[in-house]
Amino acid sequence: MNKLEFTLSAGPVEVSAATLAGLAKPIQYHYDEDFKDTFRRVQDKTAQIFQTKNDVIIMQGEAILALEGALKSLVTPGMKVLNLVQGIFGKGTGYWLKDFGADVAELEVGYDDAVTPEMVEEYLDAHPGIEMVCLVASETPSGTVSDVSRIGPICRDRGILTYVDTVSGVLGMEHRTDDWGLDLCVTGPQKCLGGAPGLSLVSVSQRAWDKMYANPAAPRDSYLSLIDWKEKWLGDGRFPYTPSVQDINGLEAALDQALAEGIDNVIQRHVDARELTKAGARAMGLEFWAVREDIMSACVTSIRLPDDVDNAAVRDLARSKYGVMFSHGQGAGNLIRLSHMGSTAGGFHSIVGLAALGRTLSDLGMKLDVGAGLEAALEVLGAQRA
Amino acid sequence: MNKLEFTLSAGPVEVSAATLAGLAKPIQYHYDEDFKDTFRRVQDKTAQIFQTKNDVIIMQGEAILALEGALKSLVTPGMKVLNLVQGIFGKGTGYWLKDFGADVAELEVGYDDAVTPEMVEEYLDAHPGIEMVCLVASETPSGTVSDVSRIGPICRDRGILTYVDTVSGVLGMEHRTDDWGLDLCVTGPQKCLGGAPGLSLVSVSQRAWDKMYANPAAPRDSYLSLIDWKEKWLGDGRFPYTPSVQDINGLEAALDQALAEGIDNVIQRHVDARELTKAGARAMGLEFWAVREDIMSACVTSIRLPDDVDNAAVRDLARSKYGVMFSHGQGAGNLIRLSHMGSTAGGFHSIVGLAALGRTLSDLGMKLDVGAGLEAALEVLGAQRA
Amino acid sequence: MNKLEFTLSAGPVEVSAATLAGLAKPIQYHYDEDFKDTFRRVQDKTAQIFQTKNDVIIMQGEAILALEGALKSLVTPGMKVLNLVQGIFGKGTGYWLKDFGADVAELEVGYDDAVTPEMVEEYLDAHPGIEMVCLVASETPSGTVSDVSRIGPICRDRGILTYVDTVSGVLGMEHRTDDWGLDLCVTGPQKCLGGAPGLSLVSVSQRAWDKMYANPAAPRDSYLSLIDWKEKWLGDGRFPYTPSVQDINGLEAALDQALAEGIDNVIQRHVDARELTKAGARAMGLEFWAVREDIMSACVTSIRLPDDVDNAAVRDLARSKYGVMFSHGQGAGNLIRLSHMGSTAGGFHSIVGLAALGRTLSDLGMKLDVGAGLEAALEVLGAQRA
Amino acid sequence: MNKLEFTLSAGPVEVSAATLAGLAKPIQYHYDEDFKDTFRRVQDKTAQIFQTKNDVIIMQGEAILALEGALKSLVTPGMKVLNLVQGIFGKGTGYWLKDFGADVAELEVGYDDAVTPEMVEEYLDAHPGIEMVCLVASETPSGTVSDVSRIGPICRDRGILTYVDTVSGVLGMEHRTDDWGLDLCVTGPQKCLGGAPGLSLVSVSQRAWDKMYANPAAPRDSYLSLIDWKEKWLGDGRFPYTPSVQDINGLEAALDQALAEGIDNVIQRHVDARELTKAGARAMGLEFWAVREDIMSACVTSIRLPDDVDNAAVRDLARSKYGVMFSHGQGAGNLIRLSHMGSTAGGFHSIVGLAALGRTLSDLGMKLDVGAGLEAALEVLGAQRA
Repeated sequence: MNKLEFTLSAGPVEVSAATLAGLAKPIQYHYDEDFKDTFRRVQDKTAQIFQTKNDVIIMQGEAILALEGALKSLVTPGMKVLNLVQGIFGKGTGYWLKDFGADVAELEVGYDDAVTPEMVEEYLDAHPGIEMVCLVASETPSGTVSDVSRIGPICRDRGILTYVDTVSGVLGMEHRTDDWGLDLCVTGPQKCLGGAPGLSLVSVSQRAWDKMYANPAAPRDSYLSLIDWKEKWLGDGRFPYTPSVQDINGLEAALDQALAEGIDNVIQRHVDARELTKAGARAMGLEFWAVREDIMSACVTSIRLPDDVDNAAVRDLARSKYGVMFSHGQGAGNLIRLSHMGSTAGGFHSIVGLAALGRTLSDLGMKLDVGAGLEAALEVLGAQRA
Repeated sequence: MNKLEFTLSAGPVEVSAATLAGLAKPIQYHYDEDFKDTFRRVQDKTAQIFQTKNDVIIMQGEAILALEGALKSLVTPGMKVLNLVQGIFGKGTGYWLKDFGADVAELEVGYDDAVTPEMVEEYLDAHPGIEMVCLVASETPSGTVSDVSRIGPICRDRGILTYVDTVSGVLGMEHRTDDWGLDLCVTGPQKCLGGAPGLSLVSVSQRAWDKMYANPAAPRDSYLSLIDWKEKWLGDGRFPYTPSVQDINGLEAALDQALAEGIDNVIQRHVDARELTKAGARAMGLEFWAVREDIMSACVTSIRLPDDVDNAAVRDLARSKYGVMFSHGQGAGNLIRLSHMGSTAGGFHSIVGLAALGRTLSDLGMKLDVGAGLEAALEVLGAQRA
Repeated sequence: MNKLEFTLSAGPVEVSAATLAGLAKPIQYHYDEDFKDTFRRVQDKTAQIFQTKNDVIIMQGEAILALEGALKSLVTPGMKVLNLVQGIFGKGTGYWLKDFGADVAELEVGYDDAVTPEMVEEYLDAHPGIEMVCLVASETPSGTVSDVSRIGPICRDRGILTYVDTVSGVLGMEHRTDDWGLDLCVTGPQKCLGGAPGLSLVSVSQRAWDKMYANPAAPRDSYLSLIDWKEKWLGDGRFPYTPSVQDINGLEAALDQALAEGIDNVIQRHVDARELTKAGARAMGLEFWAVREDIMSACVTSIRLPDDVDNAAVRDLARSKYGVMFSHGQGAGNLIRLSHMGSTAGGFHSIVGLAALGRTLSDLGMKLDVGAGLEAALEVLGAQRA
Repeated sequence: MNKLEFTLSAGPVEVSAATLAGLAKPIQYHYDEDFKDTFRRVQDKTAQIFQTKNDVIIMQGEAILALEGALKSLVTPGMKVLNLVQGIFGKGTGYWLKDFGADVAELEVGYDDAVTPEMVEEYLDAHPGIEMVCLVASETPSGTVSDVSRIGPICRDRGILTYVDTVSGVLGMEHRTDDWGLDLCVTGPQKCLGGAPGLSLVSVSQRAWDKMYANPAAPRDSYLSLIDWKEKWLGDGRFPYTPSVQDINGLEAALDQALAEGIDNVIQRHVDARELTKAGARAMGLEFWAVREDIMSACVTSIRLPDDVDNAAVRDLARSKYGVMFSHGQGAGNLIRLSHMGSTAGGFHSIVGLAALGRTLSDLGMKLDVGAGLEAALEVLGAQRA
């Protein structure tokens, strides 16, 4: 296997030197007032990227921890929930919902498509009594997005709680927790923020807290518990357990860089990277995974592979021969992802991605015009930077 | 508040520059074969400090995650469990056991004392049918230890499962998983290993796995699940969720340092630090928390404070005035802890601890002979290094 | 040899984690405008610690480089120079002066004493025609200082150029380049600033530049040249040669910390550390090297050893047995230095120093009351932090 | 100015995370035996890349320091020296030679050409009495090399001393100090080794030492002195002045990586990068600077620009618009350099370089087939990795 030259994965992403320096700060005791101040400051900065005045909880584990803990805290037996499924993570939410005893309805489309606001609106109108809608803002494995900006208000206007998995959504697309009335949102640092994995960032509305407190099955005295964090830490200044000091420091470094750049600029950087990647992929002769372009996420561009080209083989060859690490679709389909996420959402990281993918696919027998693809991508980049 | 000069906490501890450098290694995608190799290597090194051939699971959260997950995986409704309680963590195990439906008996002593092997033996002889014994090898909040070297075999010989919280035990005292027949052990990197927090290190015997697999309530598809790690990662090379790449790298750095030093040497370093700390504290006129010296842990020396000297006030003054961060007893009693744990288990870090504590207590009105204490500690240090 | 636990040397000193992080920033090409901006910013911050509006030159080598280069640039054959000698570095200046052809007079005292302003004044009055006075503000090897605050103005008022070696002076004692009329001053980052070695920081008055430009023997097109830096870099934005990018980044980190703390606070921190060290050493029964206390520097406390206790043996034993690294006098005499410099000018680092030195000397047979010494030092520390 | 995305300069180069971690190791006192051991170990590893048993001196400043110091040490008034000039650095050697009083003859060719071994042989045969030949192995500013493998032995066989500037030569091309009989060689870490700037690495034959010792004008007690290092450090274990501890640690990290990869592999990596870069540049329609391909260095590919395209403008636009930092020719001619040096001598870093340069030149009005160039480069890369 050749040496790794570029990590162009869909998270955890390569992080900046400043973020690595954050991770390497001296470890403080978690009850040092300095560290407690740091923790509170990091919460405030997280609230900024969530664009919320709601409580922010930082759970000490990868986003899946908060997704599980929050859902378990919100769901009561027999609760009527509408789950929107357009990819692997939405599908998984449904399994959990059933495990936790909800009465689940699903609006499901192909993993290369998106559930539209119209579908949601229509369903809710036809099915009164839904208490919660669950959705995934950005399905990372397949690179499609959900229109949270419209689905959120549709639910809010009907008094329906929203549970939003936006792990790769925040900073990779517009996300307005308060403006859109979103109740429970979860994101992670290792995606568009360009941070390290290991933390769950959660925003919780008062309505969501009320629901959890009314739920006798909501986890308490548990690693899964949001209520523990609310009562012990937010309420009382005591940590439910030892937090990951270094990860909090790394998160602050990543947040500082994003806030210094500006939230809108970070999002635009992702959009720009997608546009040049799309131009390059198209001109090279590649096909997009998504059935239509307006549902493609700004953080990964998913490429649909021909049936006879296996996505795992593509990833392995790109890595072993060319030292470039891609992500495939984690089972979402026969696709490969050109990521432009966090610190790799620049310009030339996408040129590397296109070149490495184009060359790898050529090695595997696909007929592509790699040169034309790269030239087209550079053309778009030139125009963006004009 | 004056600037922090020394962190002498009971974990997370100050870590070495080499460990910080480990945390700051470039973030790799978790499915990069390089990283998967790293993860496996780290498991093997963890097995070495556990002194086991059992499976090692590295869960991606502070030790409490594995303690909860493992207990929940092992306990079935009505299961007869004997829980040994000599401190806060043992007490907490009991609460969980009840929550999870076990039929719990407890052998409880004061938090300044230890449950003896004889007590355990006697109890087990008198009460057949116990299926599991839970114990805490090292009660960090109060600085006492349990004699696992004898309690382990007592249980093994009776075919009783053992669940051992040795979060601050491994590398701070002898720990022989296989020789002592321990089934489920949990430790963390942020204590005697001198690493960063955020990971649970678990060793699981085949007998423990069998118990979990036979338990329909054992967590699956959950952040709490050990079975997920067994099946997906150990079995199939897939991570149940994104691991904390940087924390794994930091853990490897810490393990490498410990293994290069030698397990016995690391333990001896802790013992030496305790001995000089004890000599210093005694000569200064301080009283130990533990009712007898042979149950004092090698990683923290707990000092019993007079009733009119509040442990929180001591910690706050030491930190704010002198820039030295101590841990108090987290509710275990009116005590303060002189830690000598991980990278602070040297010689002069304990001199700093004794000097800062002595001076702080003098400020608070205690009559102490600080100079005599420091001189006595240095005397012991001199003899150790002879 | 036991493992290093504390470096309490007289420079290079232990540096803070933030300074290490500065050193570890990505290496930029020196002609990247970002880096050129950094270099200029670092110059400006250096000017702040020099308290000057003069040009600041940052030469890319340890302070001795600038001391040599500047002296060679200033001295013309037959130039009448008065050199003040109270230690090793002053002595060395004299050798260079002779090599470079100056007509050198020296005011020399024992290396445990200081040349007074009165001596200088008297000499200058008696010997008209002196064109330059050379002095060492802080003789690091012996821990004595020179009263630059008075000698500077004495020279300025007579129109005499001053060449000031203040490598361990800046930030360890008051230093006012402009207020005191100092022409050429050299300091380094690895002393009181708490930075890494490898750079020479120089302030140059217009008068000094004029002198250099009038000197045909002044180095040009040479690593020793100050004029190259003036013309190429300050004048033209071109580096005379590749600068040490990482060292500039590390210097900026160190400067940022010092400026955030405040120049006066940094100096006071050194003074406080000296006072507690002096109190401790005195109460322990140690003798100071300096003949009188008002000439003792704030960055190292030099201890006079009995004739039968060899300073090299003391240093070796402290390091090999106790893992504490001290500096001896580099030939200035039979002394050992308790440093409290840069990041080790705190409180408890000096307790470590006193304890380790006291214990080492006891091992070597000296009768000391180490306990009393430590207690006295803590007493002073308590009063300082009140 | 857009954010820096890639540094593709001709040194200082981007360095690996492992090298940055080396720079960030705790600063030790230079007289700590640990550090002295480190220094000696780094010398030995440096000798390995020089492929020599000669003394290795590590001077504490960028390579120009050793180039100056060594030349000044070797040259005596009236000494007959032949200087080979094919670029800026060779030209500069000549200026120094004259300054130092040598009787200089020069074989000079255009800066896009190389002095051949035949020219040297012929000259030496025709001009007996030459005592030293000076040459530059790799003229970084113009990207041409000298055939040291043949010129070295030609000199050795005639008993003529050789002075070789191989700052960007070692590890970027074959370099055999002993096999080729080279007397004095200087390299730096910040080029093909992929380290940080700030150090001069020098190999010195016994013959060269003899010459220096016989030279009364050889610098002594000076930053420029090699003899000081020979006598004080190599002879006596004392440093002539404080070394740059962090830079030595960084150098060791870089050396460790290179030696682990293997000297021949590192060189091959540079050669491969040049080949793919050449293929790309040629297919894009670019012209090489060098008059013939066999004199092109493996560490930078110099591109000849049309008269109406200014090299400074190219560099500025690439940096400000595209965030890619190139080096121009530092006055060697109207050229721009595609560097593939040290850590950027991979595969895709050169794709970035070609893409960014191609796009920038297109922006400036040149008609290029950027796509064809990138495709050709990828083709070569694919074949190299087969």
